[in-house]
Amino acid sequence: MTEFGAEIYARLDRLAEISAEPGRLTRLFATQEQARASDCVMEWMRAAGMSARVDAIGNVIGRYEGTSPGLPALMLGSHLDTVRDAGRYDGMLGVVSAIACVDELNRHQQRLPFAIEIVGFSDEEGARFGAALLGSRAMAGTFDPVVLDCRDASGITMREAMARAGLDPTGIASASRKRDELLAYVELHIEQGPVLESKSLPVGCVTSINGATRLKVTLIGQAGHAGTVPMADRRDALAGSAEAILAVESLCAERPDLVGTVGMIEARPGAGNVIPGLAAFSVDVRAPQDAVRLDAVARLSAVFEEIARRRRLALSIERVHESAAVPCAHWLMAQINRAIAREGVAVCELPSGAGHDGMAICAIADIGMIFVRCAGGVSHNPAEAITIADADRGARVLLAFIEAFQPQA
Amino acid sequence: MTEFGAEIYARLDRLAEISAEPGRLTRLFATQEQARASDCVMEWMRAAGMSARVDAIGNVIGRYEGTSPGLPALMLGSHLDTVRDAGRYDGMLGVVSAIACVDELNRHQQRLPFAIEIVGFSDEEGARFGAALLGSRAMAGTFDPVVLDCRDASGITMREAMARAGLDPTGIASASRKRDELLAYVELHIEQGPVLESKSLPVGCVTSINGATRLKVTLIGQAGHAGTVPMADRRDALAGSAEAILAVESLCAERPDLVGTVGMIEARPGAGNVIPGLAAFSVDVRAPQDAVRLDAVARLSAVFEEIARRRRLALSIERVHESAAVPCAHWLMAQINRAIAREGVAVCELPSGAGHDGMAICAIADIGMIFVRCAGGVSHNPAEAITIADADRGARVLLAFIEAFQPQA
Repeated sequence: MTEFGAEIYARLDRLAEISAEPGRLTRLFATQEQARASDCVMEWMRAAGMSARVDAIGNVIGRYEGTSPGLPALMLGSHLDTVRDAGRYDGMLGVVSAIACVDELNRHQQRLPFAIEIVGFSDEEGARFGAALLGSRAMAGTFDPVVLDCRDASGITMREAMARAGLDPTGIASASRKRDELLAYVELHIEQGPVLESKSLPVGCVTSINGATRLKVTLIGQAGHAGTVPMADRRDALAGSAEAILAVESLCAERPDLVGTVGMIEARPGAGNVIPGLAAFSVDVRAPQDAVRLDAVARLSAVFEEIARRRRLALSIERVHESAAVPCAHWLMAQINRAIAREGVAVCELPSGAGHDGMAICAIADIGMIFVRCAGGVSHNPAEAITIADADRGARVLLAFIEAFQPQA
Repeated sequence: MTEFGAEIYARLDRLAEISAEPGRLTRLFATQEQARASDCVMEWMRAAGMSARVDAIGNVIGRYEGTSPGLPALMLGSHLDTVRDAGRYDGMLGVVSAIACVDELNRHQQRLPFAIEIVGFSDEEGARFGAALLGSRAMAGTFDPVVLDCRDASGITMREAMARAGLDPTGIASASRKRDELLAYVELHIEQGPVLESKSLPVGCVTSINGATRLKVTLIGQAGHAGTVPMADRRDALAGSAEAILAVESLCAERPDLVGTVGMIEARPGAGNVIPGLAAFSVDVRAPQDAVRLDAVARLSAVFEEIARRRRLALSIERVHESAAVPCAHWLMAQINRAIAREGVAVCELPSGAGHDGMAICAIADIGMIFVRCAGGVSHNPAEAITIADADRGARVLLAFIEAFQPQA
């Protein structure tokens, strides 16, 4: 069964060739490249004994019937779109690995007491129109039609782009699925973080897709000449921001499952010989539990206020994004962990810091996720890498999970 | 004698109209605007009983003979160029105030046992070509001909620009003056800082033009996903920079005459959901004494190294500028303080955090400076402001100094 890894690798290479840009992988929603990737995946699905179709929003859906036709389905999959200049594993690995599992069942003419559906979601990244999770939201029935008016960088609306690509912007409701059609949604994905690598483990079981809060914090003091204003008279907005940045770091280090990041900063006027009168920075806080995240955000806000007051700075805190944590179902985690153990791998549970299609699909099904180790935790980058052995391990765990799958009582 | 202030104000308004940009004051080296300002100032000089000329580098020089012609001169003045979108006092106030003083002497047909020369330097700010103190360096004989090849934003070399403006790039040596022609150089200038305002004093005596060191500091860690990399595994270049920024602030607050500023910062890749893998920032350190400044820079460098080591970041420190402190002559400070006291103002000595033409002229003459209070310490900005009463006070102090001036024995 070790041929899983090599086959998966070869298919990922083939998908990586389908790109809008020569020499680098960029495959966006509602494009020719997406249509070609969908055709390619449907061919693999059919070769694995599945029926295959594309829905109104462009999701590719393969179905492998169970012991009798029309049974509720265990849904597997991930997304087929990419960021710009992407790696070849983010998304695609989950689709290709699931197809490899069904192919294995099909070769042994193995039918299970439930159907299997594999979805290649048409947009998870949101790289073209800013709005993300388009495919999984349509499937979950939570697609907001307002986003059809979003425009891409060249001014084309999502509505126009979908029509040009042969998709159906007026029939998106037809892509939605009902809860009783699905037994669960389980996604295999690269970790996009360093935890499994640091523990020398090829796979892990996800506990939750972390909730996230993003703030834009602005501090306003008084610009002044770097040479003439005594230190005691300054109201330096950047020095205040430096304190705030260290507060984000230390407060979020208090709990192992909490992370906080300042990724953007700007100081104005931005000259070496001028004391910054304004500084603005982003804060990104994530945690598997909403209460933990919201408590951290509240405590950080209080710290920022104290810093601003003490330094005589004006403070504004704008909440620019807020998403609740999506916990994985315990009954699915238990079955995923059993599959991992059966493969002789130590069980490791970890949260997902990144977002995934499960954040939308949770509206119609319990979700579970299997993470596969990736090199250095690097993702959204051509340097994204996994080993053939780990690709193989991931598919084996997924197959073990499928074969032993017991729907929730 | 209170009409000094109103007259000075009116002349500054007139100079402020001579600009390359409508609605804001920008007057750069070797431009039409500079030639117009020079003509205007020469007209005032001649009206005050002085001879007036422009030298090879564009300095305007007025001379008021003493009791006999050809005596060594007390040199007064400041610069006539501006930064972009400048205030109307920085530089100009010193030239216009000195002319007002000579005008007063001339009206009373008062001749002193020394000549007076007033210089309007053609470039102190360096706003057009990056290289600063062009006029005063030419006069001091320290002009570096290499800078003639510097280009402005539109690609014109300084050499070409000078020729087009009727200046003489091949005859710059002719602008140099000899030490025995000059008794001293005394400049009146706005403070460009908040010290006099905070002490409710209209004028003060400068002790030294601070030396300055400018560093470009770069920290390199590891970029990563803001949601997936645990805090303990991060090598966040911006968090390290935040520590360094606070170190600059606290270390420079240890002494009242030391200042340190981080005015520019950049974090890369610069996305809210990516841990910064690189951060670069400027450090500007100034002090009246070189030993104090150099000790601070050395200690800061050691702190940066400690931060980088502890946080597993690569560090580079580039020294991009270094200028030694230029002390004002004690004998001139004593006479300036006497003039201030004679005007009934409490004596206040303070260093100059900003650079001035005296940094170049010190090569051929002892220097002294009189500071005039400005609103909020604001400078290099259209909001730069002084009161008519303070302009008057400054000119009175300068006149009192001139009338009582005793050359060094």
